[in-house]
Amino acid sequence: MQTTKQPDNVRLREDGRAVMILDQTQLPGRTVTLTLETVAQMYDAIFELKVRGAPAIGIAAGYFYAVLANGVQADSYQDFYSQCQVFKEKLNASRPTAVNLSWALNRMDAVAQANSQKPVAEIKKLLLQEATEIQQEDIRMCAAIAKHGLSLLKNGDGVLTHCNAGPLATSLYGTALGPLLLGKEQGMHFKVFADETRPLLQGARLTSYELDRAGVDVTLICDNMASIVMKNGWVNACLVGCDRIAANGDTANKIGTSGVAILAQYYGIPFYVLGPTSTIDMNCKTGDDIEIELRNPAEIREKWYTEPMAPADVKCYNPAFDVTHHDLIDGIVTEHGILRPPYTQSLATLFK
Amino acid sequence: MQTTKQPDNVRLREDGRAVMILDQTQLPGRTVTLTLETVAQMYDAIFELKVRGAPAIGIAAGYFYAVLANGVQADSYQDFYSQCQVFKEKLNASRPTAVNLSWALNRMDAVAQANSQKPVAEIKKLLLQEATEIQQEDIRMCAAIAKHGLSLLKNGDGVLTHCNAGPLATSLYGTALGPLLLGKEQGMHFKVFADETRPLLQGARLTSYELDRAGVDVTLICDNMASIVMKNGWVNACLVGCDRIAANGDTANKIGTSGVAILAQYYGIPFYVLGPTSTIDMNCKTGDDIEIELRNPAEIREKWYTEPMAPADVKCYNPAFDVTHHDLIDGIVTEHGILRPPYTQSLATLFK
Repeated sequence: MQTTKQPDNVRLREDGRAVMILDQTQLPGRTVTLTLETVAQMYDAIFELKVRGAPAIGIAAGYFYAVLANGVQADSYQDFYSQCQVFKEKLNASRPTAVNLSWALNRMDAVAQANSQKPVAEIKKLLLQEATEIQQEDIRMCAAIAKHGLSLLKNGDGVLTHCNAGPLATSLYGTALGPLLLGKEQGMHFKVFADETRPLLQGARLTSYELDRAGVDVTLICDNMASIVMKNGWVNACLVGCDRIAANGDTANKIGTSGVAILAQYYGIPFYVLGPTSTIDMNCKTGDDIEIELRNPAEIREKWYTEPMAPADVKCYNPAFDVTHHDLIDGIVTEHGILRPPYTQSLATLFK
Repeated sequence: MQTTKQPDNVRLREDGRAVMILDQTQLPGRTVTLTLETVAQMYDAIFELKVRGAPAIGIAAGYFYAVLANGVQADSYQDFYSQCQVFKEKLNASRPTAVNLSWALNRMDAVAQANSQKPVAEIKKLLLQEATEIQQEDIRMCAAIAKHGLSLLKNGDGVLTHCNAGPLATSLYGTALGPLLLGKEQGMHFKVFADETRPLLQGARLTSYELDRAGVDVTLICDNMASIVMKNGWVNACLVGCDRIAANGDTANKIGTSGVAILAQYYGIPFYVLGPTSTIDMNCKTGDDIEIELRNPAEIREKWYTEPMAPADVKCYNPAFDVTHHDLIDGIVTEHGILRPPYTQSLATLFK
């Protein structure tokens, strides 16, 4: 059981001079831990998706800032802080879309500023503490989501999940995979079906890997097999993560999620979305306000393959996300508990 | 326009001693013609999907039977026929779900039996004629299906299809792709979305290839993108082929078809099944009587890839087909016209 207690996707080296990350681009074939000491190495790790998942990027960014600050040679606060700014700007440019990146860097920056009157050595210690706290907060949040989500399941349940919302993308437990991992720790057994999640195969490469190494019974299927698995009576609940939740409960998540939700409704299977409240965007009234990212056709036509699997110039439509209508969602699980329809009311209550 | 006039997927060598097939596992990268002379080669060609698509398997099976019978050294009918039985049983075991395989073999078998009083050399000729007739009938059937199916579409329609039911899977025109190819010949324009159809990617490798070379506007999508494409309002009808139709209209087709049908119903889009009457199996009362072929997990975990995309030993569920409930099907298009619900009645009428 490797999924408990200490995250292995991002961690601080004991001497506070390096960050160790599990290189997610190498999974599941190779388990490679990278030691990151320079800003160039850290930039590359985020840019190349060696560390991925919005919460995990935030956690890494906190540690990156702290470790780089720890290595600064400076006698005055001004010298120290100006060098930190250079690192921060560089890191912040690695992935402009993920809000957690700038959120974590700004939070670290605020700690440096708030303690400008203290000795530099003292500030360095406080930054290392703050980075650790960001990770600890994420662990607590995931644990709370896991606990609430687990209350929706019973021992022996079949569960279908789509894409990857596990420990690799967060800290411990993850969001959608949290109830499964927590239940396993408590001696419960689930039979999980993991959609492989084309085109980038996060379900095959990451979800089945995470559940497998945690000893959870997992069966990998192609996305188009979700219907027969449900029809066979093997699925008691669907659990998915989320990238953005609108004020009415419409939920953007990895492409294909809305199809899973429609199948679940057809077969009478409850469909749950799991994520932290930071994913809820009350500025989006409905899913129509959520922009869907379109990605490179090559991901469908040729990526991963030994040779092209389609005519080289055939048109491809490659949306990264879709929006699941709130009518299809039986519950939204956050660290504060389980929200039920009507979501316009239950979501608003969270932000009162 | 290369899709008319002569099938290139399955044909008899002029000397009647071999069958030539286009190796569909090599498309679209390479156009490789295989010469099949032994029962082992023929079994392998069907099992490994070098020839695939229910009608094409039937056509190939007819030629296989004829060519193998042609090679039998026997003085008496009894000797001849018993050797034919050995070939027949071997070929019949190559794939369980498509009814056309056993249908074609039984039809050939009946010709042998009906002519048992004639010299063996004469029976061999009749078998070669019968196999050729099976293919010619398929050409006429596909043309009729294309014509009837086209009546369901209007110029400019968006059409979604799953897997491959084009000329490669049949003879000419194909079944589900027939209306699109015939319409194109008549100057009509359609905007087609082709599901890539994991794990074997027949939609990417074959459908987008066939439509592309015929000049039809085709966009390749991953299977899990069908929902967003329908939600976007881009699909006016779904057209799919079939491997076996039960007496109540339940239809076995490539894995994922039932999911497409459920999405189509959710979005209010008509869903049509196209296939010859030979695909209808009145001995199957419902879809529950149809055996679903389970295939190798390696097709999901590693096939096509530069390296494994999932833990090497992770369990996979890999059904080749699923059954679409008759309630989800708006029409079944055969060479005799368009059947409508209730199918228990309309299908039975065909066999009166």
